[in-house]
Amino acid sequence: MARIVMKFGGTSVADLDRIRNAAMRVKAEVDEGHEVAVVVSAMAGVTNNMVDLVHDAAVLADLREYDVIVSSGEQVTAGLLAIVLQDLGVSARSWLGWQIPIRCDDAHGSARIEEIAVDEMERRFAEGQVAVVAGFQGVDAQGRIATLGRGGSDTSAVALAASLDAQRCDIYTDVDGVYTTDPRIVAKARKLDKITYEEMLEMASQGAKVLQTRSVEMAMKHHVRIQVRSSFADSPGTLVVDEEEIVEQAVVSGIAYSRDEAKITLLRVLDHPGIAANIFGPLADASINVDMIVQNISAETDRTDLTFTVSKSDLERAEEVLRRSQGELGFDQLLADPNVVKVSVIGVGMRSHAGVAQQMFKALADRGINIQVISTSEIKVSVLIAEEYTELALRGLHTAYGLDTA
Amino acid sequence: MARIVMKFGGTSVADLDRIRNAAMRVKAEVDEGHEVAVVVSAMAGVTNNMVDLVHDAAVLADLREYDVIVSSGEQVTAGLLAIVLQDLGVSARSWLGWQIPIRCDDAHGSARIEEIAVDEMERRFAEGQVAVVAGFQGVDAQGRIATLGRGGSDTSAVALAASLDAQRCDIYTDVDGVYTTDPRIVAKARKLDKITYEEMLEMASQGAKVLQTRSVEMAMKHHVRIQVRSSFADSPGTLVVDEEEIVEQAVVSGIAYSRDEAKITLLRVLDHPGIAANIFGPLADASINVDMIVQNISAETDRTDLTFTVSKSDLERAEEVLRRSQGELGFDQLLADPNVVKVSVIGVGMRSHAGVAQQMFKALADRGINIQVISTSEIKVSVLIAEEYTELALRGLHTAYGLDTA
Repeated sequence: MARIVMKFGGTSVADLDRIRNAAMRVKAEVDEGHEVAVVVSAMAGVTNNMVDLVHDAAVLADLREYDVIVSSGEQVTAGLLAIVLQDLGVSARSWLGWQIPIRCDDAHGSARIEEIAVDEMERRFAEGQVAVVAGFQGVDAQGRIATLGRGGSDTSAVALAASLDAQRCDIYTDVDGVYTTDPRIVAKARKLDKITYEEMLEMASQGAKVLQTRSVEMAMKHHVRIQVRSSFADSPGTLVVDEEEIVEQAVVSGIAYSRDEAKITLLRVLDHPGIAANIFGPLADASINVDMIVQNISAETDRTDLTFTVSKSDLERAEEVLRRSQGELGFDQLLADPNVVKVSVIGVGMRSHAGVAQQMFKALADRGINIQVISTSEIKVSVLIAEEYTELALRGLHTAYGLDTA
Repeated sequence: MARIVMKFGGTSVADLDRIRNAAMRVKAEVDEGHEVAVVVSAMAGVTNNMVDLVHDAAVLADLREYDVIVSSGEQVTAGLLAIVLQDLGVSARSWLGWQIPIRCDDAHGSARIEEIAVDEMERRFAEGQVAVVAGFQGVDAQGRIATLGRGGSDTSAVALAASLDAQRCDIYTDVDGVYTTDPRIVAKARKLDKITYEEMLEMASQGAKVLQTRSVEMAMKHHVRIQVRSSFADSPGTLVVDEEEIVEQAVVSGIAYSRDEAKITLLRVLDHPGIAANIFGPLADASINVDMIVQNISAETDRTDLTFTVSKSDLERAEEVLRRSQGELGFDQLLADPNVVKVSVIGVGMRSHAGVAQQMFKALADRGINIQVISTSEIKVSVLIAEEYTELALRGLHTAYGLDTA
């Protein structure tokens, strides 16, 4: 007997047929004798509709009210899944965030879970009852509903698995696992049997939208074994686990890419101590995240060129903010380019293997792809290239690192 | 300065434009210096969609889960109205049933309100904050969401008005008041300025769907002054008040009708003590409400004919139940007729005026309408007639009792 958390995403509960399909999977685990908590998302499309309603209601909506509204979708799914489970003869009840309670901080719209009370749930496990938990939501210290940000149901599931000390946290989704890269672009992409938390974290933050980044951080911290698998197929998925669990580690595990990048270059910026703070301070104040940064070498001693990337959706605002400070920053020209993509090779094996970056640069150069910006971390090399080369770069790198299926 | 409860029904909050319209009405009361609690229904159609989902999910759904699902509609409206009010510069926050809390019994799907804690709401009134309350919902002693039955937001509003000791409870709806009869059928129907609780109760239970019956009972018990008025017009509505408040009371205030009736006649039932219990006991066990009953005179001493009415939707089940007991009841034949309508004349003035019933019978007879069953109460005379005469009967009675507009 094991204790299992199962999480079903929006496409896995998109209609009653899919909810029944999810219920059959839950019943199968119950029939095996396992204790099961299920975390559900809103039915596909519902949360987007709610978000649209809020945005149409007011430009700047009170986030506490936003949370009241957008949390309703998971509430409906939880009730429906409980009903369908009961109809299959499985004892089940729904739990809303405030009923458990899942205690959160008061950062409404992107709250963090602080504590989950699981005593009553565990007592009911002993009676054979399945807990159907509304994902994405908790309650703050003032008793108001708080939501965890988009994709937050993943975090609900991992946090619950940690609190319940569950043996597994199975994330059911519309893909059958984590791939070496996007299989829609690279036909030879392979499903990974296992991936480390660190790699998954880089994959997630680099644009592979399988798991919410925060859920992976939490799983890593609490050693929750995540399995990403398909609601619609019976094949095993991908295990996200501690590095020690992976015996033979490839140097590069996967290649991620993000089209949500835009490049800004400031030409002939005054080069003196504190200038970086003057540039990035106002951007931070405007809640604009800066990702890759490179300071170019300049022939002039008191001038330099600076290139960095922001999210595509922030580009216009970033330009405004910078032009407002043009006098102070003293740059000649601002060049903005939204037609860029960030490609990253990721693997914990890099720590012990030299030459991974050079291999990447060579593979791109061989295909005539110019690298605009480079950034690296211990287990990742990212490059910014022109967006039109996305497919060419992904396929070339996938082959170069020996990731292609036989 | 007064304390006011305002309630907006589903058509009054059907979309964002209508929610804005409702918000403007709330703002007008706030600008007058009043303390305001607003009770909202789900946006028109939402609750029906949820009910359909539940029915499609399982034939016999756990009502506690039903309540989790169907209560979500009011949650969304409450959040949206709070946001729109804030956008208009009015301080406001949403309150869900469990947050206040509105304590209910555990009769899920048709729970009764036991207590409403209003201390915090009153404290916030003093700070100028409007309370936007999700109607139709409360929380039971186990901390589970309980709903009050269809139309329950009226009851939420009246119960809140009673707990807050509010001067007024304004029910905003898509009609501009309570009419002497259905204006879609009788063009000369008049809007009533005032109506007593007792009359409203009879009107409501006789099919005039302006207010939930339970809300009127509660208003009568706690002397809550209800005003039924239109969200879309500025004319005053109809006040529902104590009898003493109405100086000049008409003998008949209104004429109601209900098409949701079906007639069952049992021919040659064995006539002995206890037979009525034998007939109506099994129907009650099957949760089938019996309304009008008449036992016909029979020539035989040990046999009688019995006629009664049930809700149209219960007719088939009622027939089944009765046929199953045919041996015991000993009736010869069961006649079922769904093509009937119940027409009622209502007025507290009947208490002191004789001849109201005869006037009704004559008006119907003059128009060749045959009366099938009669039942009376202190302030009401109801007759069952063939459905095809509905319009003719309503118009004739409206004229006969002098209710036509000049």
